[in-house]
Amino acid sequence: VRKRVVAVIGGGECSVEEACFAEELGRRLAEEGIVVVTGGRGGVMAAVSRGAQQAGGLTIGILPGTHPDESNPYLDVAIPTGMGELRNGLVVAAGEVVVAIGGEYGTLSEIGLALKVEKPVLGWRTWRPRHYRGTDAPIIAVSSVDEAMEQIQQFLEHSIGEEKT
Amino acid sequence: VRKRVVAVIGGGECSVEEACFAEELGRRLAEEGIVVVTGGRGGVMAAVSRGAQQAGGLTIGILPGTHPDESNPYLDVAIPTGMGELRNGLVVAAGEVVVAIGGEYGTLSEIGLALKVEKPVLGWRTWRPRHYRGTDAPIIAVSSVDEAMEQIQQFLEHSIGEEKT
Amino acid sequence: VRKRVVAVIGGGECSVEEACFAEELGRRLAEEGIVVVTGGRGGVMAAVSRGAQQAGGLTIGILPGTHPDESNPYLDVAIPTGMGELRNGLVVAAGEVVVAIGGEYGTLSEIGLALKVEKPVLGWRTWRPRHYRGTDAPIIAVSSVDEAMEQIQQFLEHSIGEEKT
Amino acid sequence: VRKRVVAVIGGGECSVEEACFAEELGRRLAEEGIVVVTGGRGGVMAAVSRGAQQAGGLTIGILPGTHPDESNPYLDVAIPTGMGELRNGLVVAAGEVVVAIGGEYGTLSEIGLALKVEKPVLGWRTWRPRHYRGTDAPIIAVSSVDEAMEQIQQFLEHSIGEEKT
Repeated sequence: VRKRVVAVIGGGECSVEEACFAEELGRRLAEEGIVVVTGGRGGVMAAVSRGAQQAGGLTIGILPGTHPDESNPYLDVAIPTGMGELRNGLVVAAGEVVVAIGGEYGTLSEIGLALKVEKPVLGWRTWRPRHYRGTDAPIIAVSSVDEAMEQIQQFLEHSIGEEKT
Repeated sequence: VRKRVVAVIGGGECSVEEACFAEELGRRLAEEGIVVVTGGRGGVMAAVSRGAQQAGGLTIGILPGTHPDESNPYLDVAIPTGMGELRNGLVVAAGEVVVAIGGEYGTLSEIGLALKVEKPVLGWRTWRPRHYRGTDAPIIAVSSVDEAMEQIQQFLEHSIGEEKT
Repeated sequence: VRKRVVAVIGGGECSVEEACFAEELGRRLAEEGIVVVTGGRGGVMAAVSRGAQQAGGLTIGILPGTHPDESNPYLDVAIPTGMGELRNGLVVAAGEVVVAIGGEYGTLSEIGLALKVEKPVLGWRTWRPRHYRGTDAPIIAVSSVDEAMEQIQQFLEHSIGEEKT
Repeated sequence: VRKRVVAVIGGGECSVEEACFAEELGRRLAEEGIVVVTGGRGGVMAAVSRGAQQAGGLTIGILPGTHPDESNPYLDVAIPTGMGELRNGLVVAAGEVVVAIGGEYGTLSEIGLALKVEKPVLGWRTWRPRHYRGTDAPIIAVSSVDEAMEQIQQFLEHSIGEEKT
């Protein structure tokens, strides 16, 4: 049976609070048997992979460069792409749900891409893009790992339901 | 001599005001001999290409699909990619300066990518992404085509200067 | 510890002999704990994934489209890309060694890309590209799964050695 | 009116004969108003662009790196991609017809991709991939620039006809 996949995005450097949130999220995703996909580098990407791997989960990193050794040490599988920053779009494409934790401009681009292809985007202390027209981007703000996991579970169940009908 | 290139991004559908701004910008870019690169579809992309082409400029569209006929009718050269939404990153990569006019989530992703690779981003009635930390993304808001052209000229001159030294 | 990864390429439709070879190769790779990466579709890609999965291995498919359901049923993780045929390059980039089994023009392009980036390419009943100059592309012809596994083991050990020094 | 586009592929280093063939081909394409797209680097790519530019044609280079200055000096427009060797697929995607002149493994991958998407591929002193099954890849061997131009004209007229009906 194919595994469910969540993409976690965020800065290659991050605060202690962001790393704690990411690591705990990784642990919880792993406990549910959900694969964690990231951009494979440091910061949030390393923290969520470390949490997931320590809980026995599967972690995949989609790397900007061409060599698997450019990754953080918490990946089960490193997928080098050689596509540079364009690999951001592949991280988003790989996840059924996208979770943004903090992050800089790369994270902003990933949020935009995820919304463009109508994937659910959860956010913790991340970007809040407002349009000139006054509308906000529909990022689902979560305030705890518990809340994030609840949302993720709902989306994954919902999308299974869709495929069955 | 290689031509200077500006990428113009914005919605595949757009308001009359956005189309007017884009068309006038295209005309002005063409008059300066600057190549206009877009995503090659409708809305802002068509309007800026129409303006540029009518003023004798060169227009290039980088298309999501695999066939050149999916483009708007104002392109001199259509570059099909078959990369879907990931082609957004190529539009940004092609421009020395990026101008965002209105736009939806695709435009938001392009703004993020451009900032990530430290390209200057001008914006007219577009996204204003604010981070949880309180910082705003450094989009240079312009209020007229004149102001946009002034900024573009400055950036292009500056980057020539850099290369010479 | 990061897992070793072998990319297996070949036709989306294939002969019974090719499917048997691929399935047996998948089983053997899985027994060595090696991850099998493919393009995620039918034919050789399905057969090698089926063999690997039945032997308890990990199978990853890098898909041309945007939806994970476009894959064969033998994947643990489906990575949709939306990049169409350009995703071929990602399959090659993901493998430390590339094995070509039969195949058509897509396989030919993958062989070219793998040689370009100096990855070892093993081939079983596949393309033999000869240059006008008279030189043959350095595809290592194997005549059995045993021989393929021997070569793969040698390359993987060699590249670990390289990294250590 | 959108311009017709031919992609010319070949080695980043090349023989004097290959450079002469490429330069003459570029000149002839330019005289017909056909845009020349290449990978933007040296060797065959530089020679065909030089020929085209000297005859007043339009030359576009799709670069592997992120900076337009990595190109040969004969481009009107440089399109940096940051996609490394994966940009080969974009060169092929951009051309309505693909002409291979000599070349190494990158050229082989481009030939494979072009055949995969059913584009006509002309070849001069390039790869001749033969399958294990005994079939040859359908590269149309040309022995002179005249012959190449005749074939190109036929394909371009044919594809206009297709679109009209």
